[in-house]
Amino acid sequence: MHTTRLDQQLRFIIEIDKLKGIVRRSYLMDTSRRENSAEHSWHLAMMAIILAEHADEPINLLHVIKMVLVHDLVEIDAGDTYIYDAQANNDKVGREQQAAERIFSLLPAEQAREIHTLWNEFEARATPEARFAAVLDRLMPLMHNFYTEGRSWQEHGITVDQIMQRTESVRESSQTLWEVAYALIEEAHQRGYLGQSPGQE
Amino acid sequence: MHTTRLDQQLRFIIEIDKLKGIVRRSYLMDTSRRENSAEHSWHLAMMAIILAEHADEPINLLHVIKMVLVHDLVEIDAGDTYIYDAQANNDKVGREQQAAERIFSLLPAEQAREIHTLWNEFEARATPEARFAAVLDRLMPLMHNFYTEGRSWQEHGITVDQIMQRTESVRESSQTLWEVAYALIEEAHQRGYLGQSPGQE
Repeated sequence: MHTTRLDQQLRFIIEIDKLKGIVRRSYLMDTSRRENSAEHSWHLAMMAIILAEHADEPINLLHVIKMVLVHDLVEIDAGDTYIYDAQANNDKVGREQQAAERIFSLLPAEQAREIHTLWNEFEARATPEARFAAVLDRLMPLMHNFYTEGRSWQEHGITVDQIMQRTESVRESSQTLWEVAYALIEEAHQRGYLGQSPGQE
Repeated sequence: MHTTRLDQQLRFIIEIDKLKGIVRRSYLMDTSRRENSAEHSWHLAMMAIILAEHADEPINLLHVIKMVLVHDLVEIDAGDTYIYDAQANNDKVGREQQAAERIFSLLPAEQAREIHTLWNEFEARATPEARFAAVLDRLMPLMHNFYTEGRSWQEHGITVDQIMQRTESVRESSQTLWEVAYALIEEAHQRGYLGQSPGQE
């Protein structure tokens, strides 16, 4: 009754249900549990709608939203790689590229290309939309950590220097949101939500 | 340091984290747990991207995506009202309107209006975008039920007649997706995934 093209599309839609089972390090703001990558992607898309005006470069909102909706799909195969886990980050690129190949190619060829291109663009951070999407992806965990008193930072001993370094790139895309991020980190540091820097007591 | 406008926006972004705690009746395809409304909204947005070509009327994709991203936010206060629960549906409109007032008005006034207007549009089903968003919102639970052998249908004794009636409106927006829905329901019925109709054995 329905075409192969449609079957491929439905197959993909069913497959990506698995993203709801990929658990991140961040806790929900009510600390009840850790967040999964599907609901995280929804939250970034909502942030894009609400905060788009703070991008310092002109951005196409639909493009940003598409990118944040698909940016974590590769985790279905490759898992969530914690940003501060140096070892896991060593082979992250290879694992995620394999995942992208398998998952996106469930789609009809030209849609597979579109989603793959969006994901590559997000990873490369070379367009205004990708830079802004990355800002949202940096800012959100800061907010989750701040409002859970640094719960996942504490669990992993993350220091203020590590966070500052990871957050620096926000400045390239949004001065306003960089100030928000900086203020959150400063305040979190003062309140003792962070791990100690190496060499500190 | 940052403005009141920005504070309002961040307050809203924090508040809507609660949507991740609103549990729906549908089970994930792997049956591990019930789905929440935030990850459901993400899944609908992905469906919109992949299935947009099957809308019978011209649609603006960004508009559809925004609508599905915000369509369940009122559940933060009003809870998820099961589509087949007649009693809960009696006062659903009032409960959800109150919720919309409180939640959207956390935002700066013109953004509150934009989100409220999107939600009203979704509820009214009077534009091509709202009709297509509703198609996705109908089709997704059919897929979840089909691939979990009718788990939430069985739990609530939902009959094939009830489902056919709720699905009829899909036809107005997408003949193709209506055929998909119809085929899923027929097959589910044959496989015994559904409750018995009143009067049947």
